[in-house]
Amino acid sequence: MAVYTDISEDDLKHFIAAYDAGELLSYKGIAEGVENSNFLLHTTKFPLILTLYEKRVDRNDLPFFLGLMQHLAARGLSCPLPLPRRDGALLGELSGRPAALISFLEGMWLRKPEAKHCREVGKALAAMHLAGEGFEIRRPNALSLAGWRELWDKSEARADEVEKGLSAEIRGEMADLEAHWSKDLPAGVIHADLFPDNVFFIGDQLSGLIDFYFACNDLLAYDVSICLNAWCFEKDGSYNITKGKALIEGYQSVRPLSAREMEALPVLARGSALRFFLTRLYDWLTTPAGALVVKKDPLEYLRKLRFHRQIRSTSEYGAL
Amino acid sequence: MAVYTDISEDDLKHFIAAYDAGELLSYKGIAEGVENSNFLLHTTKFPLILTLYEKRVDRNDLPFFLGLMQHLAARGLSCPLPLPRRDGALLGELSGRPAALISFLEGMWLRKPEAKHCREVGKALAAMHLAGEGFEIRRPNALSLAGWRELWDKSEARADEVEKGLSAEIRGEMADLEAHWSKDLPAGVIHADLFPDNVFFIGDQLSGLIDFYFACNDLLAYDVSICLNAWCFEKDGSYNITKGKALIEGYQSVRPLSAREMEALPVLARGSALRFFLTRLYDWLTTPAGALVVKKDPLEYLRKLRFHRQIRSTSEYGAL
Repeated sequence: MAVYTDISEDDLKHFIAAYDAGELLSYKGIAEGVENSNFLLHTTKFPLILTLYEKRVDRNDLPFFLGLMQHLAARGLSCPLPLPRRDGALLGELSGRPAALISFLEGMWLRKPEAKHCREVGKALAAMHLAGEGFEIRRPNALSLAGWRELWDKSEARADEVEKGLSAEIRGEMADLEAHWSKDLPAGVIHADLFPDNVFFIGDQLSGLIDFYFACNDLLAYDVSICLNAWCFEKDGSYNITKGKALIEGYQSVRPLSAREMEALPVLARGSALRFFLTRLYDWLTTPAGALVVKKDPLEYLRKLRFHRQIRSTSEYGAL
Repeated sequence: MAVYTDISEDDLKHFIAAYDAGELLSYKGIAEGVENSNFLLHTTKFPLILTLYEKRVDRNDLPFFLGLMQHLAARGLSCPLPLPRRDGALLGELSGRPAALISFLEGMWLRKPEAKHCREVGKALAAMHLAGEGFEIRRPNALSLAGWRELWDKSEARADEVEKGLSAEIRGEMADLEAHWSKDLPAGVIHADLFPDNVFFIGDQLSGLIDFYFACNDLLAYDVSICLNAWCFEKDGSYNITKGKALIEGYQSVRPLSAREMEALPVLARGSALRFFLTRLYDWLTTPAGALVVKKDPLEYLRKLRFHRQIRSTSEYGAL
């Protein structure tokens, strides 16, 4: 639940006046998102999301995130669109935080996605990869090999508190991934966090993608591997090959994966499982008990990582 | 921040189908309210609030609360209106909780209300008192003299932890209030919790009253005294007589207070200060550290109580 900064109606009225957004009618803090404070606004013109960027978000990254949403929307991808101020800027300031007004995207995220939804997600991810072409600002992936190493250095000493032998296992995994990571596959703008709560549906129709605050430049197939991890495992930890097949087929129907991208999927999926394992492990070890945040179990991603390690061929994911 | 129960879009779609409310487009948990879980819904017809009643609310009270909103709205008071289901019921069930769909009231609560807003609040409170006439369900005030005694019995032993001498002071205050409480003043339905966050404005125009979940039958002038406590003190604890005058004048312009109600105000205001002091004291002593709730300082209301104790005449509140 995320409303870290309260705002007064006076400050908000003043903030809104810089936009062609009508008169403010109401605003409610919304209990979604983890990094930022979000409010749902009604004005005399349209509903809007107001996002206040909290300290965990690097201010220097905001032109990338906001510019990317604008770029993707202009190329037909359904995603939130930052509203420009009358002076053209996408970013203002409110209650001492960088703040943006963003179009409100109707739709709901699915608590229990099915294979048909995974297919739509695959299509939308590929459409995003194509729409991202030509976006000129660059942002390296802070959570790839080098970033994992940094996170691991901060957690390794206490890793065996979570599970005995974890320290040796992850050390070996990292060395192996560093040795086998594919560096020359097709790259571009990736979402990097396309979990179910970032994909909206109205009925079975995908209505849009949200939350581009981990987006960056990296291998496109790595983004596919993130979705395999995020969408195709059941709560009991089992991999659902029907969902995996639907997701990969959906993706390929819009942007075919090359043979080399296909081959690389198991290693990429180990990497993306490791990425979420490491951030969760770090949060697990450093979040004080009783904090206003739900700690996510890092072991969920350790189990996924182990699953990917025993994959011998991409066909085991359901790919043809 | 209040979203205690998550809901799935499937359950919600099923729930909504019992209403003539259009198709669901989106829902967001909102970070307002302390007792219940609230969601803001967009449908193809109109925005709505979905409230899930959590365990602190007695299910037997719900027909009073929902019926009251319907009664008040039908008499022209601007307040949220429960939407009846196709079968006529105001209450359904969702995620194992009693749940209602309620019209969305535009407006914002004022973080820094001024005297002109206090006047509007006084008018709206009086209008609510008049509109409440004829409402047939009754609900005694659980937080009046007998309820205070119960709360006090649970807190007295540890009261001196909060301030030395508190135990003796409150014991004396309670005895004094029990001896001098006016029982035969005009009574009716009171809001009983009309704090700034329960009154919406658009610009300087009051757009409606919300949150009737403490409403009950009690002395009307007691409700005025709650508003004096809630609206007319500054952050530094000082009483703002300009605001008090505006609030009382606003009230009187719609429903004149009798001489006996006027005379009773200082004792009633001591009572309402004691009421909020006692619930805050109880929460203060019983809420575990690190809980997901902001503990409100009980001493704020002790200071207000002491202020009212030294009032010699209602004119000191700003009343003519």
